[in-house]
Amino acid sequence: MIAEEFIEANQKYAANFTPPKLNRRNIAVVTCMDPRVQPYEQLGLKIGEGGIIRNASGSAEEAIHSLVVIQHVFKVTQIAVVHHTDCGATKFTTEWLRDKVKAANPGRDDVVKTIDGMDWHNFTDVEESVKRDLKYLAENPLVVKGTKVTGWIYDVDTGKISQVGDVVV
Amino acid sequence: MIAEEFIEANQKYAANFTPPKLNRRNIAVVTCMDPRVQPYEQLGLKIGEGGIIRNASGSAEEAIHSLVVIQHVFKVTQIAVVHHTDCGATKFTTEWLRDKVKAANPGRDDVVKTIDGMDWHNFTDVEESVKRDLKYLAENPLVVKGTKVTGWIYDVDTGKISQVGDVVV
Repeated sequence: MIAEEFIEANQKYAANFTPPKLNRRNIAVVTCMDPRVQPYEQLGLKIGEGGIIRNASGSAEEAIHSLVVIQHVFKVTQIAVVHHTDCGATKFTTEWLRDKVKAANPGRDDVVKTIDGMDWHNFTDVEESVKRDLKYLAENPLVVKGTKVTGWIYDVDTGKISQVGDVVV
Repeated sequence: MIAEEFIEANQKYAANFTPPKLNRRNIAVVTCMDPRVQPYEQLGLKIGEGGIIRNASGSAEEAIHSLVVIQHVFKVTQIAVVHHTDCGATKFTTEWLRDKVKAANPGRDDVVKTIDGMDWHNFTDVEESVKRDLKYLAENPLVVKGTKVTGWIYDVDTGKISQVGDVVV
């Protein structure tokens, strides 16, 4: 199991550990679970800085549950949505994934209902995907009024980010 | 704006960039958005390795939407749930947060309905929180049968992880 390797690696990490100061820096980053993404280094954040929300594709819709916390509890008023090239979300469709989960759970009406309520907002154009999320956040009453949202694409081949939009909620 | 600083920091990052190979290593890590958490270094994963899902507290319930993708599309069969000491989820209650969002949206019945449907599973005991998520995953039909789930606490003061449970789904 991979997790068993965590212990040895962590012992080395902890041996030279200095606790970082928690500094939210008024920024939440919403990005993909893809491990080629490394928001701290790629965006110039130090460990301890910002709030880092990650999920399949970097969906603002999936992240809203956490954004409510970081905004209403921790007063963060800036959000950066960072999607990336070669994203897994371009490699399947919501309908295909729903069918796959249903096939793995024959006769389970509860699973059918749950999975039909999930949507991964798969995309072919990463810029459109970021812009869709900016629109989603701009129109969502759970987002604090006055929040500044920026949209970005991270290129996994070059390491470069490019901004594709911004909006004030 | 913080995001404006991203561009300059990213230019330095990209100047010495070698694209990492994508290697899912059959592991998904579910952990907190708290920026003192750095799953790659703290668990011994290199950039490009694993799948990293992050949200408020490292909730498996919020992560399920992404776990379905990483399991059914990308065939990952090991999940590590990593919560941490001094977590923000210990510093408020779901009821308090719901009231705060409602107060910010007077007269919006749609907001009341949405926010009353959200639960942050706040906790005082981080070990119980991890165990709750192991149970949640073990009982969830969306998780692939045979998945190995491990539960961990990351100590933000020492940099050390400790395992608090495991389950085969």
